Amino acid sequence: MLEILGYVEKDIRKMDFNEVLDEEPKLIWMDCYDPSDEELYAISEKLGIDTDELALGLDEQEVPRVEEEEDYYLIVFKAPLFEEDITTTSFGVFVKNNIVLTIHKDKIKAIGKLHRAICYKKPRNVLDKGNGFFIYTLLNQIISSYSKVLVKVEDDLDVLEDRILQDHNKNLTDDILQLRKMLVYFHKALISNKDVISLLKRKYLPITTQEDRWEFEDLYYDIIQLIDMETTYRELLSSMMDMTLSIENIKMNQIMKILTMVTALFAVPVWITGIYGMNFKYLPFSEDPNGFWIILLISMILIVVVMYIFLKEKWIR
Amino acid sequence: MLEILGYVEKDIRKMDFNEVLDEEPKLIWMDCYDPSDEELYAISEKLGIDTDELALGLDEQEVPRVEEEEDYYLIVFKAPLFEEDITTTSFGVFVKNNIVLTIHKDKIKAIGKLHRAICYKKPRNVLDKGNGFFIYTLLNQIISSYSKVLVKVEDDLDVLEDRILQDHNKNLTDDILQLRKMLVYFHKALISNKDVISLLKRKYLPITTQEDRWEFEDLYYDIIQLIDMETTYRELLSSMMDMTLSIENIKMNQIMKILTMVTALFAVPVWITGIYGMNFKYLPFSEDPNGFWIILLISMILIVVVMYIFLKEKWIR
Amino acid sequence: MLEILGYVEKDIRKMDFNEVLDEEPKLIWMDCYDPSDEELYAISEKLGIDTDELALGLDEQEVPRVEEEEDYYLIVFKAPLFEEDITTTSFGVFVKNNIVLTIHKDKIKAIGKLHRAICYKKPRNVLDKGNGFFIYTLLNQIISSYSKVLVKVEDDLDVLEDRILQDHNKNLTDDILQLRKMLVYFHKALISNKDVISLLKRKYLPITTQEDRWEFEDLYYDIIQLIDMETTYRELLSSMMDMTLSIENIKMNQIMKILTMVTALFAVPVWITGIYGMNFKYLPFSEDPNGFWIILLISMILIVVVMYIFLKEKWIR
Amino acid sequence: MLEILGYVEKDIRKMDFNEVLDEEPKLIWMDCYDPSDEELYAISEKLGIDTDELALGLDEQEVPRVEEEEDYYLIVFKAPLFEEDITTTSFGVFVKNNIVLTIHKDKIKAIGKLHRAICYKKPRNVLDKGNGFFIYTLLNQIISSYSKVLVKVEDDLDVLEDRILQDHNKNLTDDILQLRKMLVYFHKALISNKDVISLLKRKYLPITTQEDRWEFEDLYYDIIQLIDMETTYRELLSSMMDMTLSIENIKMNQIMKILTMVTALFAVPVWITGIYGMNFKYLPFSEDPNGFWIILLISMILIVVVMYIFLKEKWIR
Amino acid sequence: MLEILGYVEKDIRKMDFNEVLDEEPKLIWMDCYDPSDEELYAISEKLGIDTDELALGLDEQEVPRVEEEEDYYLIVFKAPLFEEDITTTSFGVFVKNNIVLTIHKDKIKAIGKLHRAICYKKPRNVLDKGNGFFIYTLLNQIISSYSKVLVKVEDDLDVLEDRILQDHNKNLTDDILQLRKMLVYFHKALISNKDVISLLKRKYLPITTQEDRWEFEDLYYDIIQLIDMETTYRELLSSMMDMTLSIENIKMNQIMKILTMVTALFAVPVWITGIYGMNFKYLPFSEDPNGFWIILLISMILIVVVMYIFLKEKWIR
Repeated sequence: MLEILGYVEKDIRKMDFNEVLDEEPKLIWMDCYDPSDEELYAISEKLGIDTDELALGLDEQEVPRVEEEEDYYLIVFKAPLFEEDITTTSFGVFVKNNIVLTIHKDKIKAIGKLHRAICYKKPRNVLDKGNGFFIYTLLNQIISSYSKVLVKVEDDLDVLEDRILQDHNKNLTDDILQLRKMLVYFHKALISNKDVISLLKRKYLPITTQEDRWEFEDLYYDIIQLIDMETTYRELLSSMMDMTLSIENIKMNQIMKILTMVTALFAVPVWITGIYGMNFKYLPFSEDPNGFWIILLISMILIVVVMYIFLKEKWIR
Repeated sequence: MLEILGYVEKDIRKMDFNEVLDEEPKLIWMDCYDPSDEELYAISEKLGIDTDELALGLDEQEVPRVEEEEDYYLIVFKAPLFEEDITTTSFGVFVKNNIVLTIHKDKIKAIGKLHRAICYKKPRNVLDKGNGFFIYTLLNQIISSYSKVLVKVEDDLDVLEDRILQDHNKNLTDDILQLRKMLVYFHKALISNKDVISLLKRKYLPITTQEDRWEFEDLYYDIIQLIDMETTYRELLSSMMDMTLSIENIKMNQIMKILTMVTALFAVPVWITGIYGMNFKYLPFSEDPNGFWIILLISMILIVVVMYIFLKEKWIR
Repeated sequence: MLEILGYVEKDIRKMDFNEVLDEEPKLIWMDCYDPSDEELYAISEKLGIDTDELALGLDEQEVPRVEEEEDYYLIVFKAPLFEEDITTTSFGVFVKNNIVLTIHKDKIKAIGKLHRAICYKKPRNVLDKGNGFFIYTLLNQIISSYSKVLVKVEDDLDVLEDRILQDHNKNLTDDILQLRKMLVYFHKALISNKDVISLLKRKYLPITTQEDRWEFEDLYYDIIQLIDMETTYRELLSSMMDMTLSIENIKMNQIMKILTMVTALFAVPVWITGIYGMNFKYLPFSEDPNGFWIILLISMILIVVVMYIFLKEKWIR
Repeated sequence: MLEILGYVEKDIRKMDFNEVLDEEPKLIWMDCYDPSDEELYAISEKLGIDTDELALGLDEQEVPRVEEEEDYYLIVFKAPLFEEDITTTSFGVFVKNNIVLTIHKDKIKAIGKLHRAICYKKPRNVLDKGNGFFIYTLLNQIISSYSKVLVKVEDDLDVLEDRILQDHNKNLTDDILQLRKMLVYFHKALISNKDVISLLKRKYLPITTQEDRWEFEDLYYDIIQLIDMETTYRELLSSMMDMTLSIENIKMNQIMKILTMVTALFAVPVWITGIYGMNFKYLPFSEDPNGFWIILLISMILIVVVMYIFLKEKWIR
Repeated sequence: MLEILGYVEKDIRKMDFNEVLDEEPKLIWMDCYDPSDEELYAISEKLGIDTDELALGLDEQEVPRVEEEEDYYLIVFKAPLFEEDITTTSFGVFVKNNIVLTIHKDKIKAIGKLHRAICYKKPRNVLDKGNGFFIYTLLNQIISSYSKVLVKVEDDLDVLEDRILQDHNKNLTDDILQLRKMLVYFHKALISNKDVISLLKRKYLPITTQEDRWEFEDLYYDIIQLIDMETTYRELLSSMMDMTLSIENIKMNQIMKILTMVTALFAVPVWITGIYGMNFKYLPFSEDPNGFWIILLISMILIVVVMYIFLKEKWIR
């Protein structure tokens, strides 16, 4: 799927593929999502970039980096991917003259959001400032996308902590695993993204102005903050897993104590009833009218004594 | 909330917002806690600092750093935050000419304390020596605030260790988790703060004198000492978690031994009573007047033998 | 075993050992798999490389590296080894003039594949560009071989996750161990291989052209991507092992709860039946025609009460 | 407490506080242990060092380092502290002209030992060679003090290993925890001390001669050896904790197997006796004189069969 | 114990202590194992090396390093030590003029082997090439000694893996611990040894020729290979320990399931027999000739139903 926005004569408008390069607008953003082979070939033709190179942007595992080629630039960046689980995916940004091409295999929320924002809201300040600022806006949107997820994680952690103390089950363990999984993916992605931003803020590239580099400087601190949050959360999660294990053991201890108490309380009394249930002709006290009550009393006393022992050993509280 | 202290003619006095800049006191400290939008806008107007920049000081997760702008300095620093749990929060210090502005979203104990100290105790030696020394005093107060918490942790650890050996339950696990959580937050905060102090002690900035930098040197060793303590405590806590797990397992073993012994002791005797409880016409010894006593004796001997086996296997001590 | 391919007059053909060096083809690839001592000696004679040196390529544990000797180059590289388990093995590539000798103790899939491709498919573009490009093609094949395995691992992990939640047993644990083992070997191999590729892309060697080094640059990013994937998978696996442990504990808790409930439910009722089974002459209610039903009712009520307690404690759901 | 030793005219003698500086002995060692405020003030007066600076030596957590001040040197170093547990404590060494002042809050064994050695044994070779050599002797004594403890740890570990295999209980877990705790403290202390020694061996300071620096070089290797030992022991201890956990689990398995066997062996036989204990008028075989023996035989066979199953499953060995 | 080999006039012969230095053979190797004080003193006299220095070679924990003294060289190196467990020990190599002195407290296999090889096999090529080559031969022998042990470890790991899946007990845990212990010692030793070899291959020392340094280069790759193997094995062992824990838990689950099933199967049937064992005058069906069979049938049905429930819950497979 290919959607093209052009900034022509201080206005934004959707463009047709054939219009591109024809009337030289100031800035053209081509967003190419999961392209068919034909689309890929057409773009390759139009921009003069090899399809193999374009395909780099479609590899979900591609390493984030900045590549300077003879007549274009390629930025590979990782964005959060909201599918069944939250993982990450790579996308490519090709910059050639006045054209910025974003190309991605997976649906990336932040790009869609930026697209809508440009179409319906405030076109000028994003596209007016040139390629560099547009790239900054795009990457900033991606970083915000991570940020939103991570801010939610903090609340999730508080909820998890309460749930661990109250009750522990398979769902909880699964939730913890899902969180850890997401944080593992985010960690890898953010570390690599940081290198990209760090290069963009530091190195002179013809596509960015000095002002753009200052913006990337801010983005750099944002990404460091996210990495900080994410490592903190990972350590907290791992503390929680430990706690989980400990609490399960404590619960098991309590269950086993109950089982042991129930078994111990009735062991002797049941044996006694067994003894008096034996079919001997001569059973002591069996003729005695109080025999039954005597035995019952002895059993009761035994139960109370055993209970008292458990109480003293603090098995019951 | 906005509170302003000015050092005018060798005296401290509370100032009104409008007085600021009017009569040029030597040093003005504006402390701005959780400001309303109006307050933020007013401060922005007065100081000529963008509200977006001021808002950096209100982001609780902001990365500690020193930023040199054209006509002011921004120091972001992390302080302990005493809410339900002890975590950390960021605050911003803006320095412009004779004005020091501290701005924070959360209530920071150390700042309140410094405020009270200046108002009611010894104003001169803090404010007389200029911006640099005031900032040193402020950061020193924050570091002391960490220090107090960490010194208390050492005692907590000793108490925890005793509690683990005596009795282990959910509360204990929760206490360990809370401590670990706090130390994780402190670790991140102290590491970042160290970089700030390190820069302040090393780099020439117009706002600090050579003497101030010597003071920051001392602060630097203090913060390294805190990091050292904190990592030590984290390792001790993790050893304790291991110990906890081990002790729970030992207890479980003991509980299961008791259960097994109770079950094993009465298994055969109960079976024997069952056998003699069967309603057969011809039961051996059933007519014998000593039958009952013989069976009882055999059961008793069996119980003693099983008990002896457990004693030899050191299940009972 | 020794197989020789020569690129003579724009055509590929299998060559005899004696033909080598005789008619000076542009490029000769000698592939030597698990050579006999005679073969090794013959190659040593022909190429003028010491048998000790050749033997480096046969050591399965040899450290990947590039060695520059006076008149030849040696590249040691690690490839995946598909035996019972998937581990890794080292092989050597000797480059001397127009001859490339690959020598390996174990069967390496990627080399066989390349051999078949050259024989039956597209000879020119691989062998036409000289030694450097041929080495690139070879190493690229090896890297793809890792890549294929690692891509499969991602699916395996998803399957494992589901299996953990559903049912956990020895086979699962074994599968996890096998995966971890493979990833440990891959990690070591890829880290060392990265150094080889990094050197090949960076350093001027007479056997590689500038174009070859650009190809190695691409390979370098591929290998970094693989390392990234592999570390991510290792962290996910280790999270899964933790989850596994937790789920086993939860299951154990549930089993013990069932056991405790069964034991507790019938403890008192069985004791009661024991009491009324005692052979006393005077048993209360024993003459009463409703006695049996009263006792049965009491037992039932007891069972319901105990069940209700467990229900309230949320042991049953 | 303050004790002063002076090296006057090739002899050692205890000196009075007032004598210090009066008659210019070649070297004066003032040892100040847990000083009162008056003592601290007096020393400050005499040496011209601020009390705040002197107090650095009394902070048990102070970071080891070397500080060069205008007219004196301060070395902070960490020594083992033998209280209830073995931890570490900091002490300060101030060097000003011919005076060496050691100041410490806690009792440090190594210092007491050196004091006694100088008083009663071999005074000259220690004090004759000047400040630098005296400091070397002092720090060497401290390092030996660590060394003695760590050498003992190796034996402790062997004993622990045997105890784990034989029997595992709370005391053992506590002993392991105490060892780990000590090694954590030692690790931090030795790492910091290493930096001090490294600086003393490397950097030209007016208080050390070239020969002294050679001695510090030896000390440097000693401290590296200690760090090596200590990390090795920590890894061994952590392996032992793992082993402990594993052995506890194995024991638990064995206990549960016994319990399960006892329960399973008598489950059916007890049920059978119950069946024949029922008070029905018509019980099969109940009139048969061999009935009892038949039932008993069936029960016995059942027990043997179940036992055989357990034997085949290798539950019994 | 002191054994001396001299290379005199192209022949090897055992020498007397007094002959040393007398007739100037080309190379003298003195091997000194656990020397008495007299021996140590005699060597010190002969070589002009301080006994304190010589004693460095006798400290089993000494840090591997190369020391250049005025007229001799000292190399400290770590060798595997085959006692009850396999650990490591340090030994010293002193090189002065034409004399190489190896001095060690413990018996080192590799040195004994080299000694025998020189005495009985191929003297020339080892001693003919001078000090540097002899040291290379010696260290090479030590490295091979590590290599042999580590190659065996790989097989041990395969065996362990099978044993874990089959059966797990204390011996297995102990075997794993012993392996881990050995690898911890090997890791420390190999890392330090690597630094020694790295220096010998890199730095010009009068005792080594350029050819010797090329040999050390090969040794360097060997030692890196060993470190690689050893870290791989450590990671595999730690994976196995995790697996072990998991399998123990699975087994425990199975044992508890059996126990719970046995208990649950007979809970109700035993209660029923108890009910009909009560001595009431009026028991329903007790007069009925089919009563016994009805109750027995109900019990059987109950057992089958409970078993079916367990089957459906997949407790039985």
